[in-house]
Order: sequence, then C-alpha cells, then structure tokens
Amino acid sequence: MSADVGIVMGSDSDWPTMEAAAQALESLGVSHTAEVVSAHRMPHEMIAWGAGAAERGLRVIIAGAGGAAHLPGMLASVTPLPVIGVPVPLARLDGMDSLLSIVQMPAGVPVATVSIGGAQNAGLLAARILGAGEGERAARIRARLDAHRDELRASAEAKGRALMERQGR
Amino acid sequence: MSADVGIVMGSDSDWPTMEAAAQALESLGVSHTAEVVSAHRMPHEMIAWGAGAAERGLRVIIAGAGGAAHLPGMLASVTPLPVIGVPVPLARLDGMDSLLSIVQMPAGVPVATVSIGGAQNAGLLAARILGAGEGERAARIRARLDAHRDELRASAEAKGRALMERQGR
Amino acid sequence: MSADVGIVMGSDSDWPTMEAAAQALESLGVSHTAEVVSAHRMPHEMIAWGAGAAERGLRVIIAGAGGAAHLPGMLASVTPLPVIGVPVPLARLDGMDSLLSIVQMPAGVPVATVSIGGAQNAGLLAARILGAGEGERAARIRARLDAHRDELRASAEAKGRALMERQGR
Amino acid sequence: MSADVGIVMGSDSDWPTMEAAAQALESLGVSHTAEVVSAHRMPHEMIAWGAGAAERGLRVIIAGAGGAAHLPGMLASVTPLPVIGVPVPLARLDGMDSLLSIVQMPAGVPVATVSIGGAQNAGLLAARILGAGEGERAARIRARLDAHRDELRASAEAKGRALMERQGR
Amino acid sequence: MSADVGIVMGSDSDWPTMEAAAQALESLGVSHTAEVVSAHRMPHEMIAWGAGAAERGLRVIIAGAGGAAHLPGMLASVTPLPVIGVPVPLARLDGMDSLLSIVQMPAGVPVATVSIGGAQNAGLLAARILGAGEGERAARIRARLDAHRDELRASAEAKGRALMERQGR
Amino acid sequence: MSADVGIVMGSDSDWPTMEAAAQALESLGVSHTAEVVSAHRMPHEMIAWGAGAAERGLRVIIAGAGGAAHLPGMLASVTPLPVIGVPVPLARLDGMDSLLSIVQMPAGVPVATVSIGGAQNAGLLAARILGAGEGERAARIRARLDAHRDELRASAEAKGRALMERQGR
Amino acid sequence: MSADVGIVMGSDSDWPTMEAAAQALESLGVSHTAEVVSAHRMPHEMIAWGAGAAERGLRVIIAGAGGAAHLPGMLASVTPLPVIGVPVPLARLDGMDSLLSIVQMPAGVPVATVSIGGAQNAGLLAARILGAGEGERAARIRARLDAHRDELRASAEAKGRALMERQGR
Amino acid sequence: MSADVGIVMGSDSDWPTMEAAAQALESLGVSHTAEVVSAHRMPHEMIAWGAGAAERGLRVIIAGAGGAAHLPGMLASVTPLPVIGVPVPLARLDGMDSLLSIVQMPAGVPVATVSIGGAQNAGLLAARILGAGEGERAARIRARLDAHRDELRASAEAKGRALMERQGR
Repeated sequence: MSADVGIVMGSDSDWPTMEAAAQALESLGVSHTAEVVSAHRMPHEMIAWGAGAAERGLRVIIAGAGGAAHLPGMLASVTPLPVIGVPVPLARLDGMDSLLSIVQMPAGVPVATVSIGGAQNAGLLAARILGAGEGERAARIRARLDAHRDELRASAEAKGRALMERQGR
Repeated sequence: MSADVGIVMGSDSDWPTMEAAAQALESLGVSHTAEVVSAHRMPHEMIAWGAGAAERGLRVIIAGAGGAAHLPGMLASVTPLPVIGVPVPLARLDGMDSLLSIVQMPAGVPVATVSIGGAQNAGLLAARILGAGEGERAARIRARLDAHRDELRASAEAKGRALMERQGR
Repeated sequence: MSADVGIVMGSDSDWPTMEAAAQALESLGVSHTAEVVSAHRMPHEMIAWGAGAAERGLRVIIAGAGGAAHLPGMLASVTPLPVIGVPVPLARLDGMDSLLSIVQMPAGVPVATVSIGGAQNAGLLAARILGAGEGERAARIRARLDAHRDELRASAEAKGRALMERQGR
Repeated sequence: MSADVGIVMGSDSDWPTMEAAAQALESLGVSHTAEVVSAHRMPHEMIAWGAGAAERGLRVIIAGAGGAAHLPGMLASVTPLPVIGVPVPLARLDGMDSLLSIVQMPAGVPVATVSIGGAQNAGLLAARILGAGEGERAARIRARLDAHRDELRASAEAKGRALMERQGR
Repeated sequence: MSADVGIVMGSDSDWPTMEAAAQALESLGVSHTAEVVSAHRMPHEMIAWGAGAAERGLRVIIAGAGGAAHLPGMLASVTPLPVIGVPVPLARLDGMDSLLSIVQMPAGVPVATVSIGGAQNAGLLAARILGAGEGERAARIRARLDAHRDELRASAEAKGRALMERQGR
Repeated sequence: MSADVGIVMGSDSDWPTMEAAAQALESLGVSHTAEVVSAHRMPHEMIAWGAGAAERGLRVIIAGAGGAAHLPGMLASVTPLPVIGVPVPLARLDGMDSLLSIVQMPAGVPVATVSIGGAQNAGLLAARILGAGEGERAARIRARLDAHRDELRASAEAKGRALMERQGR
Repeated sequence: MSADVGIVMGSDSDWPTMEAAAQALESLGVSHTAEVVSAHRMPHEMIAWGAGAAERGLRVIIAGAGGAAHLPGMLASVTPLPVIGVPVPLARLDGMDSLLSIVQMPAGVPVATVSIGGAQNAGLLAARILGAGEGERAARIRARLDAHRDELRASAEAKGRALMERQGR
Repeated sequence: MSADVGIVMGSDSDWPTMEAAAQALESLGVSHTAEVVSAHRMPHEMIAWGAGAAERGLRVIIAGAGGAAHLPGMLASVTPLPVIGVPVPLARLDGMDSLLSIVQMPAGVPVATVSIGGAQNAGLLAARILGAGEGERAARIRARLDAHRDELRASAEAKGRALMERQGR
C-alpha cells in the first residue's frame, strides 16, 4: 500500500531541516515517504514524479527547497494534490529568498507555504489536510490532532509552572 | 447543509481582495461562506467561531488579514481544520508585514500561506485539500481541478498565439 | 496584594530575553509577575488571562513573542490596559518578523512596541506609564526614573573618561 | 489647566498623519495640545520642550516623525514621561526608515512605538496609559476605552452583516 | 533558418516589459523569436521547449518571469544554452521576489540575471554572448556592440550639453 | 595563447569565494586566468584592463566584488565582451548590497549576475557562453556541459538512494 | 575662475532630483557647475573628469546616481577631493539599491552619502565642507550656514504657530 | 591647540568600531580627539558639545552610533561643521537600522554617511574635507591623501601578484 504523504527535497543536505516533517507525521500515525527530487538537477524526473503522484496514491506532497526554490511550485503545476512548501534557509539571506520563491506563486497554481525551516508544521498541516476528509480515517487523524493540541497546551502550562517556580513563587 | 469552506476576513475592506477566493470556489462547485471575523475587534467571537468551525461542518478555513495579521494563526490555534492564510496588502510595506505575520507561525500550529493578495489561489488550495480526501466527492473535485489546469494551459497557449500574431508571424 | 505589571511570554525559551524586563522593574521597585501564556498553544487561557488582567489588579502588561508574534496584539484586543510588546528575535530574520507582527496593529487596538529584544526598555516603559499617573506612588516612580536617568548619564560620562584615559590624555 | 497629552511633530506636513491622534483623544475626552517641535530645525527648543513637559503638567507625549526620525527618542531622553512614537511614512521606503529610527532605541530610554502612520492608535495608547492610573479620572477613561472597544466590535459585526447581505444571504 | 535568440515569458502580460529585449536584438540585427512558455501553466511544454532549444538552433534563451519566477531556472536545468533571466516586477514588492527567485539558483545550474525589468539589457547581453564566439558573424556583432556603446556615449554627451545650455552656459 | 575566461576580483580576500569559478572552468577544460583588479584601488588599471580584454583574446569576463560592488559594471562599460558578476558577501547584509550593486545596471550596459557567492555558477555560465558559439570547440564545450548535467543528476539520484537507505527502505 | 563645487549626474533625467543641490549652493553663494558624466556610458571621460577635478579648481564633488550607482564611488577613487553621493531613486526599490551601491564603499575610498533623493542636503553639505576651511571665505560660508539654520528654525516655528491657529488656540 | 577632528560615540562599546577612524587620521597626521557623547544618556551635554564644537576649534565631527542612531543627526542640527556619521552595527539587523537612522536626514540638516562599520573611511573623509580647504596645510593633507591612494594601489597590485604566484604562474 502506498504512503499518504510524499516528502521531497532537492538534496539530502535538506534532510536535517525536513526530517521534522517525517517525525511529525510519524507521531500522528500518517504514512509517508521521503525522497530526493531535485527540480534543477533532475527536472524530467521531477516533473514525472509530480505528474504521477496522485496515481501512486499520494494525497499530499511536502516539498522543501532553498534559494531559488522551484520544487514546490513546479510540482504544484503538474498535480491536483495539495503541495506544502517548506522554505529551507541557506547560508545567506536567512531563507527570505526561499520563502519568496515558494509563496509568491502566480494565480492558478497554489502552494501551501509554511514558515522558514518549518518542516514540523508542514507535517502537521499535511495531517490537518488528511483529517479534513470524510470517513473514519479522517476522523481518527482529527482526533490525534486534537490530542496533539492538548499536549501543546499541557507542555506550555508546564513550562509556565517551571518559570514560576524558578522565580520562587 | 453547511458549507465546506469558510472564508473569513478582519474587515469588509478586505473583501475586494478576498472575493477571488469565493469566485474560485464557486467556479469549482465548492460550497462556501464569507464572513467578517476580526481577531482584534471581536476576539471572543473569533475564538468561538474558530473553535466551533469543525462542528459546524466546515472542512477548510480561508482567513485573510493585513498588517499585524493575527486572524489565520489564531484560528489555527483553536481548530484541527487546515487554515489557509491570505496576506492582504495594506497601504504600506506591500504586504510584507502581512506575509511574515501569517507565515512565520511557531512549531505546532501551521497556517497554509499563499501569496500576498493571493485569494484566488487560496480558493484553489481549499479545493485541492477537499480533493485530497477519499470518496466520490473528492474525486469529482480532483477532476474539476484537472480541468481547471487544462484551461490554464489552453489560455496560456492562446496568449502565446496572440503574441506571435502581434509579431506578424 | 496583586502586582502592577504582568510579564507574559509564549514560551519559557523567551525568558532569557524577557528576564531584563523583570530586572528593570525590580530595580525600580515596581511589583510584577512573570508567566507563560501562549497565544497559539493555549489560546482560550490566553484570552481569559488578558480579559481578566485589569480585574486582577494589573495595570500594565508586558508581552514578549517571536516570529508570527500574536500575543501582544491579542491581549491588547481584550483589555483596556496598556500592552507593551517585545519582539523576541528567533534564529532567522533577526526579529524583523517579530517586530512587524507586533507593531503593525490595525487602527483601534494599539500595542506599545519596543526594540527587538528590548525587554529592559519594556520594563522601563511600564514604570514610566505607572509614573504618569496621579498620586504619591506615581510621583515616587517618577523620582526613581529621574534617578535612573542620572545614573545612565553618570555611567556614560564614566565611560567617556575611561576612553580618554585609554588614549593617554 | 494644562493638557494631559502633548502631541508634537517635526513639521506641519506631518499633521495630516498626526491629526488622527488628536481626534482619538478628542473622542475619548482627553485634553491635549498639538505643536510643531522639530528635533533638527529647533534642537534647543525641542530639548527644552521635552525637559519641561512633566512640569507643564503633561503626562504623556505623542511624537510623530519621518525618515531619520529622532524626535520621539530625543524627547524620551529628557523626560520621565512615557513617549509614544508614530513613524510617519515619507515618499520613499514606506516608513520603514521612520519605524527603525524610532523603535530601535538603546537600553535605558524606551519609546512606545505604534504602527507606521498609526496616529490614531497613538491617541488610544495615550488614553490607555492615562487609564492605567489610580483614581476616579483613570477609571472614567478605562470605562470610555471599554465603550470604544464595544463600538469597534459592533462596527465589525455590522460590516460582517453587510458583507453577508451583499452575498444575498 | 532558425533564430539565434529565443525570448520566452510566462504570460503575454509580460510582453510590455519583455518587448525591449526584442527591440534591442532587432536594432543589433540579431534574429529572435518571442513566445509564451509558462512554467506553471504549461510545465510539460515548457520542459520540452527548453530541452529542444539547442536542437532547434537557438543559441541563447531570454526568459522573463515575475513573482515566484521559475521559468528561467527551469529552462536552464534542461538546456546547455546560456539562459538570461529578466525579473519582471509585479504589483507588489517591486520585483524583489522575482529577482531572488531568478538569481539565487543552486550550484550547477546558472541563470544570467539582469536588473528588475531590464529586458533591454537582456537583449544586449544575448548579443554580447553571440559576439563572444569565433568567426565572422561574431565579429560583426562585436562591431555593432562597439557602435552601440559609441552611441550611448554620444547620447550621454548630448544630454550633458543640453543640461549645460539649460543652465545658460 | 591567451585564456578564454578572465576571472578578476577586487582583492585577494575574494579568492576563497571566487576560486570555485576557476575550479568549474578547470573541470570543463576551459582556459582561464585569475587576477586582482580593483575598481576603487586601481581604477585606471581596471579601466585599461577591461578596455583591452577583447584584444588580449579573452572572450568572457567573470568579476567578483562585494559591498558597493562596482567592478563588474565598470568592466562591462568598457568592453563588448559578456561580463558575469559574482556578488561576494561581506560581513554585513549577507551580500544583498553586493547583489543590488551588480545586478541593477542601467539600460545599455548589462552584467550577467549570478547568485550571492555563486562563483561556481559563474564558471559554468562562462562555459555555456563559450559553448553557444559556432565551430567544433563550442560543440565540445556543450558536450562537456551535457556530461556535467548528467553527473549532477546522477549525484542527486545517489543522494536520494542514500536518504532512502538511511530510512531503512 | 573655476567653480568650487562640481555637480555631476549619470543622465539629464537625474536633473529634477539633482537641481536642488544647485539651488542650495546658489542660495548660499557658492559657485558650482552641473554636468552629465556617466560612469557606464562614458567611462573613460568619467575617469578623466574625476582625475582632473582638483586641478580644475573644484574643491567638492556632488555625484548623483541611481540603481547600480557607481558614479560617486568611481570618482572618489580617482580624486583626493571629498565626494558627496546622492542616491537617486528609480522606478523600483525606492532608491534602496542606489543607497547601498553608494554608501557601502570599501575601506580606503569614502563617499559622503546623503539621503535617498537628498540633493538639497548634498548642496548644504558641500557648503559645510567649504566652510570648514581656514580663511575669510570659509568664515563667510559658515556665517551663511548659521543664518540658514536660523531660517530653518524660524520657518519651523512659523509652521508651529500656523498649526496652533488652525486648532483655534 | 585644539584638534581638527572630534570623534564621538554613544558608548565606549562603540570604540572597537570607531578606533579605525582615529587610526586613519593618525596615519595622515590629522589631529583628533575621541569622546563618549551619548545622545540618549546625556542629551543636554550632547547638545552643548555640538553647539560649541566650532568655537572649540574643531573643523569636522565624526559621530558613530547604532540602532536608533540619533547622535550624528542631532549634532548636525546644532553646528555648521560637516558631520560624518558612522552606522555602528549592533547584534541584530546588520546595521541596517543604524544606516537608515543616520542617512535619511530631512532637508536642511545633512549628515555625511559612510558604510556600515566604515569608521576608517570616516577618518579618510574627514581628511579629504580638511584637504579641500585653502592654504598650505590643506595642500599637505591632499598630498598625503594622494600618497595613501598610491599605497592602496600598490597593495592591491601586490595582492594580485601574490594570487598569481599561488596559481603557479
């Protein structure tokens, strides 16, 4: 059986950033794959990968790229699936070039862009998208997302208590 | 029956920008509502609106906001639904403040950000999200999205021919 | 008896930045508390915290946040108290996203924004605000602020003398 | 009797921007004056104006300036009163130079900065500051601020209804 | 016989900007074509167009694009020909997004980027490239480029004289 | 026999950045020289160097410069050869000043700008330019460029396999 | 007798911006000339113009330029005279490219940069420079500058009175 | 006898940056002093220092400041002397806030701004200004500046030779 979410990136040097997407999906029980698909170094394969994604059973694509980051937008142009773009920050410009190259898509071809380096949120967004569907599986993902937000709140509250204790109250 | 997509914005002055989201959904046959829900002028109602969105049957939220644009992120913090953020450009800074306020969300709470003023793409992204689900309805939306991309290509090709003719070839 | 100034931040990771606000208030003899109140991880509690701040006796709120920094603006939307926003710089963009997310509030809901990472100034500004009131307590704070400015001048002058000596004059 | 809030600006060409501060204070019943005090064209008078502000009975200063906007910070350096800075946008750079020149004050001398061109919010912030004090007058201002926020909400809701009607619902 | 330079753009709305490239080539006697080839609306055709460009006899490609401008970089990834990128400015951000999306290409796939809206220079650069080759034709283009620079100097000098006369000298 | 490509830079401190241009040319078998030619420290020599470049047999110039980076543009103004500009990043501003100083040339004098620090791509672009010419030598360079792109693809694919293996698939 | 200040600009299209420099010098009784000297369109003449400026009796140079603004820095590299750079704003980027291209000069070759479009200040700065010298003429210029600052103050005060009257006080 | 150039800075923490101005003047034999004069911590003293600078015999002022950098502009407003501003980079924003706060002065009060952190150039510019005057002393400074530019050229040429040797030519 195929995976639900396909994580792709232009180079394995993006993996330290993109790994958090895989971990988020893992923790929510969403199946996924991670592959190197470079827009600029293997353009024909990239186009083929994107054009066949829906048929291979993928339902959401997460694409990370840096600099003149063309991967998310090019995939979005050959698939009807929702494509989530992760601006990977490079050594210069703090990822501002990556962000603008991904988010400023022309009318007609959307990319769902998350924060600079925000691969964890890309994973969570993919889960929200799968949870937006109908049927039992979607409901199960929504429940896990609710639980995840409960954990976030509990963790924030615990940090608050720790801060107060440090202040001796 | 409830709508699938809820379009919200902080003020009716955002409507000229956000209207394109409604039109995109209309043209793809996706049900939607459009409402004014201001993060800063009606915060309690905004939180309540977001927290009840899934129960009211909404499956995707599109939120447009400008400047210190807090609406998409705050809604995303109270719902498990995917939230699409549209940075509305104001009179100054060309929407760069809106973009950063929406896209730079902390880990745990994603917002699917589209381009500055990119409400049409927000509508298309919402349709892609609904089309990513299982079942016949999702398949129908995917088919419409494929048709839409065909139209985009045909329109681009027609423009190309017109350009060539203008050059007298 | 309640504190005069409530310092809040989205995460205890903001504490190294925000601690300077507490120290400034401490040195001026202004009572304060410091708490973790996350706009995105505990939105309901955040709204409740802000809406009840005036009743709990707080007179000024200092809120630090980074990235898509929504905490100061959301608190300002549910309280009549003055809210001071501290843009906390994150790993990317040098706090420019935090600054714009905090300062570019829409008409109707002001946030008193200080410099990126400027928590000490947030504390001093809170003291200036308390000193702007009527009565003996406000006069006492104003006197302490005058003394503080005297110290600043003396310290700058001492640095000037040290510089001159180093040049052998 | 002296005014509570002193509005100053570097040139009368800033008045179209700064007028909204006066109007906000007017509508909240807070006394104020508006004067031209230029940091660069009348520096001695500017320093004297700031140094004597508290003695003249002013309790909050609102200072608008554009470009290399030095007025708010210089006033803050000679008074213990809270100083609110309004970045006035000039013909170039959309007010980004004004914003950074005002908000990035060094430790020790805070300026409460509002949004680019945000003079109305400067007026509201001054009222919040006056309302943070003790005594009956402060309570009266707080009540007016609460009423103002109610109006904001009512206006936002009315806009929402108008939008819905326009959509024929 | 095929053209030497292929000018492509994502939409005919880019033509008012890109026309200057054609005019520059025209005035230098360099053969060229102008076509609409959209990276996002006709990705398969775009890839095919680029991959076959060298075989069709093109020797230089000029590609104009705006926003998330992917066309020049994608073409460069499928052809060994030099690709000149023209950042087309859109309604927002003054073409800064277009510039970064084009110029910040990863190592391995260069795009020769000219100024924002600099289509005339793209045409001149294409001519310089053709003039850099061996043989008589290249020498002829170099000669025309030298003549063009002579005209530039003459025109600048004429402007200088006109300015002096206006000053009555 | 003279070299085909002249690599120049304002200071030998730019060499660690610019070395990659020489290496790229080396690996493609293109002859080149590397020299220090400073626009600001030896302006007369710089102008003479540029004006004589074509006569000395150079066919492409690669010029790296940082900050107020005037070298590429000044050389382009005295030669008909294509000039490739490499924005060298300095300690501040991440090379954004270098980029704008190089790419924003006025109409009439183009500079082929590559990414910030993108000296390797400058080398590859020079090779593409030489490969765009007629004759056997150009064809040989084109063949090497095709081989280079094959290597890029193979390397990207190998990285993809390595990533997959690391994931235990 | 030669002029004291030489105003140069890359094109007569810069004259509407640069005219204010001439007017400021005129009003202070400082002799000056205005010429078109283009760094990119007449580089040899530009270098010669700068190298001979001191001998021709010029004592200060004012150079305006836009975009990749190389004129001020190149002149500064061939003359020991102080060179004042005026960043001329072009249609895009609000003059930020012009500013960075002028101000970010490398160590060794300074350019005295004024604000974007700030030609009037360039004229005033040239007068300050001439007034910094020894002798009677310099003293006379200093006196005129003092008078000019008095006028500035008087004008600011008059504006202040007008503003007060408009408020009916 | 008084010094010709007064170097001032807001804090002795600026000295590591500003020291290069003193060294440049030292090497050119121009007398100078270095003092701490803070616009925000000792505003009255700062105004007095600037207003009396010409009478104390200073002929040029160099002022370094960071963030909301008001020192150069405020000094320029109280003296007819030329004021050179050095934008000191702080921990955030790479000195962009310092640059804009210094360079964007309003019409009437110029500051001669050098590059971010460019204190050496500030020293050289002060020498150029002193060299622009009449008399023997000015001529001597001009001669030293010419010698300095010769050294720059010689040093650049030596670096060029070293680079060539490293390449084994």
